[in-house]
Amino acid sequence: MKTIKNSKRIFLDYASITPVDSEVEKEMVRVQKKFWANPSSLHKEGEEAKNILEDARVRIARILHCRASEIFFTSGGTESLNIAILGISQGVTFDSEVPKVTPWETPHIITSTIEHPAVLEPIKFLLKEKRAEVSFVSPNEEGIINPESIKKELKKNTVLVAIQHSNNEIGTIQPIRKISNIIEQSPTPTPLPKVEGARHKPHLLVDASQSVCYEDVSIERLGADMLVLDGIKMYGPRGAGILVVKHGITMAPIVFGGGQEGGLRSGTENVAAAAGLAKALEIAVQKREKESKRLTTLRYYAIKKILTTFPNTSLNGSLENRLPNNINICFSVLDSEFTVIKLDTLGFAVSAASACHTLSLENSSYVINALDPSNSSGQVSNCGSSSLRFTLGRDTKKQDIDKLIKTLKMIV
Amino acid sequence: MKTIKNSKRIFLDYASITPVDSEVEKEMVRVQKKFWANPSSLHKEGEEAKNILEDARVRIARILHCRASEIFFTSGGTESLNIAILGISQGVTFDSEVPKVTPWETPHIITSTIEHPAVLEPIKFLLKEKRAEVSFVSPNEEGIINPESIKKELKKNTVLVAIQHSNNEIGTIQPIRKISNIIEQSPTPTPLPKVEGARHKPHLLVDASQSVCYEDVSIERLGADMLVLDGIKMYGPRGAGILVVKHGITMAPIVFGGGQEGGLRSGTENVAAAAGLAKALEIAVQKREKESKRLTTLRYYAIKKILTTFPNTSLNGSLENRLPNNINICFSVLDSEFTVIKLDTLGFAVSAASACHTLSLENSSYVINALDPSNSSGQVSNCGSSSLRFTLGRDTKKQDIDKLIKTLKMIV
Repeated sequence: MKTIKNSKRIFLDYASITPVDSEVEKEMVRVQKKFWANPSSLHKEGEEAKNILEDARVRIARILHCRASEIFFTSGGTESLNIAILGISQGVTFDSEVPKVTPWETPHIITSTIEHPAVLEPIKFLLKEKRAEVSFVSPNEEGIINPESIKKELKKNTVLVAIQHSNNEIGTIQPIRKISNIIEQSPTPTPLPKVEGARHKPHLLVDASQSVCYEDVSIERLGADMLVLDGIKMYGPRGAGILVVKHGITMAPIVFGGGQEGGLRSGTENVAAAAGLAKALEIAVQKREKESKRLTTLRYYAIKKILTTFPNTSLNGSLENRLPNNINICFSVLDSEFTVIKLDTLGFAVSAASACHTLSLENSSYVINALDPSNSSGQVSNCGSSSLRFTLGRDTKKQDIDKLIKTLKMIV
Repeated sequence: MKTIKNSKRIFLDYASITPVDSEVEKEMVRVQKKFWANPSSLHKEGEEAKNILEDARVRIARILHCRASEIFFTSGGTESLNIAILGISQGVTFDSEVPKVTPWETPHIITSTIEHPAVLEPIKFLLKEKRAEVSFVSPNEEGIINPESIKKELKKNTVLVAIQHSNNEIGTIQPIRKISNIIEQSPTPTPLPKVEGARHKPHLLVDASQSVCYEDVSIERLGADMLVLDGIKMYGPRGAGILVVKHGITMAPIVFGGGQEGGLRSGTENVAAAAGLAKALEIAVQKREKESKRLTTLRYYAIKKILTTFPNTSLNGSLENRLPNNINICFSVLDSEFTVIKLDTLGFAVSAASACHTLSLENSSYVINALDPSNSSGQVSNCGSSSLRFTLGRDTKKQDIDKLIKTLKMIV
């Protein structure tokens, strides 16, 4: 154990956060030094800052196959998702010039039971406040949402379908394109009051934060109406997110002020963060193919090795439809929180579930519980509280996996 | 004109934004490199990031004379003000365990007509949605709010009094302590339903963003219940703000998710920005006395020189109760937007009104219009569209003012 303790720590929690790429850091420092002015100012300094901001928007739009004016900068994935969910459910425009659009008394939302808390919590809020009806769709045992189950829930007052591109805990990739097609083909619901450009179908919101380093998540390819990315999940800036909203979607802001970002997100723009997001996204795309291949191989290797080394283990979520960097194993008898801490003292940063629910008092994963077939059969399994998530990143090497397994042998 | 064109540009728009202090930048880069993990993670990397975050909170609390647990990190001043205004007006707690506290059908808010758009716009939203009654208090000719005018408006359903510490356009400093005393002494309104720690009086929200580099804005000194600061106004990080909420105040979040920041502000914390805010605030306090003296002298010099050099000019706002760095002059006949652009081509970054209303189509300052006595007398003055704001900063020197006046002579 001495050798492990003295060696460099091994970080296997890249799904919770990624370090800032050194190129991104350098670009942000450069922009911050040179273009520090307020982009809303009329003078040269303001205009130069504005140019950097708009250049970032154009570069991001190019990658996501949308218009620059459809890109909105926010303070992160959580804010992006909240703007999308609360903004569209409100169904009103802030501008008093435009007629208030409330197509139905209560809007209807379809989402899955394994979404990130940044999706589930604003939806639960709307539900509690009786401002929305909600259908929660369950995944199958492999953690995949069946597009047909979405089809069944579509109603004439459905305004929003919110499905993540991939799950933050178990890494399963959802059939977004198929879901999009189903929504497109659904019978046109009662048309909205006629507002120029308004779309007469439920809007598909896709959180692609976890996927962007491994999958092409362009709006066009996915057939999404709204897309969310987060700087922290793509080796980019902290406190910085992207929300894509396709033209013609009517939504209300949730924060009010100077009217920046087309009125949808008031507050002085973080120019360096926008430049950092563009840079991080460009690097992610550039590395995507090679990294996906490399980590997929490593992931298969690790999963096979763990499942064969340890008895009574199983993989949480699909083996095939899965992010290249996600390994989530149920160890049956082990207490996940204890093991995370134990592994930590032995030099490994891993996770039990996700770092994203600090409010949750339960020591069990709602995602893993949602896919447990025993939940319905009455038989009790404890995968929800005895699973470990290992998520790989740009610095992960094969020997890290070997060291992990060696160390796990000492604990399990 | 050639000499001016070739010389270094002179930035006199520090009220719109300040550059990032080099010490702050250095600190943020250091933290970002070393403590990049997710502070909600259980492992060593997460814990170390959490420690930096909490250390920043403690350091800020020490300066603002409040408890660390009363400090909330946000994405900026606009978000902080929105959380305070929308959160308190909702009057409910998100936690379903706590009884819903809706003391009166419609809460009442008192604010002034010269607040920042980040205060006025969320309030107008509540008004439009019939979720609040609002009293707008006007300042006197000098841009000062009379505490007695607040007293007159206090009602039994008043939940919030939102008054800025100093105005972003004309720099006038409001008598916050006196306003606080009046609220304290006001007859206790109908008590709230008994919730442990709930305060039975209207809450005073103070935006001190523009003041913090020049004035002691501690919660204790001001007698405020909620306080807002913004990184961009204190040579600090972008996309980073502070909201202080005193214990015992019940409020609902406006963004939902992982429950970070005590549930009030979900979203992965920006650790480097928090460290940057603490550093920026410490530097601001350390430089405060000396910079205030230096800039006050410079301000008096500039105001006197401008008023004596140019006929038909007047100072907007009080000469005495004014931020050391704010000079706002009405030039009577000049078109402010044209002059800003003209000065820009001659090497000066100045502002007509504020950079903070990009939505506003009017080329006139609502702040300056609000103090114009001719508005009520029926006589028309055009100070709203013919005023210039020069705001000084750490790099401003006497010769900058002299050059400005020399250049203004060529234009006016």
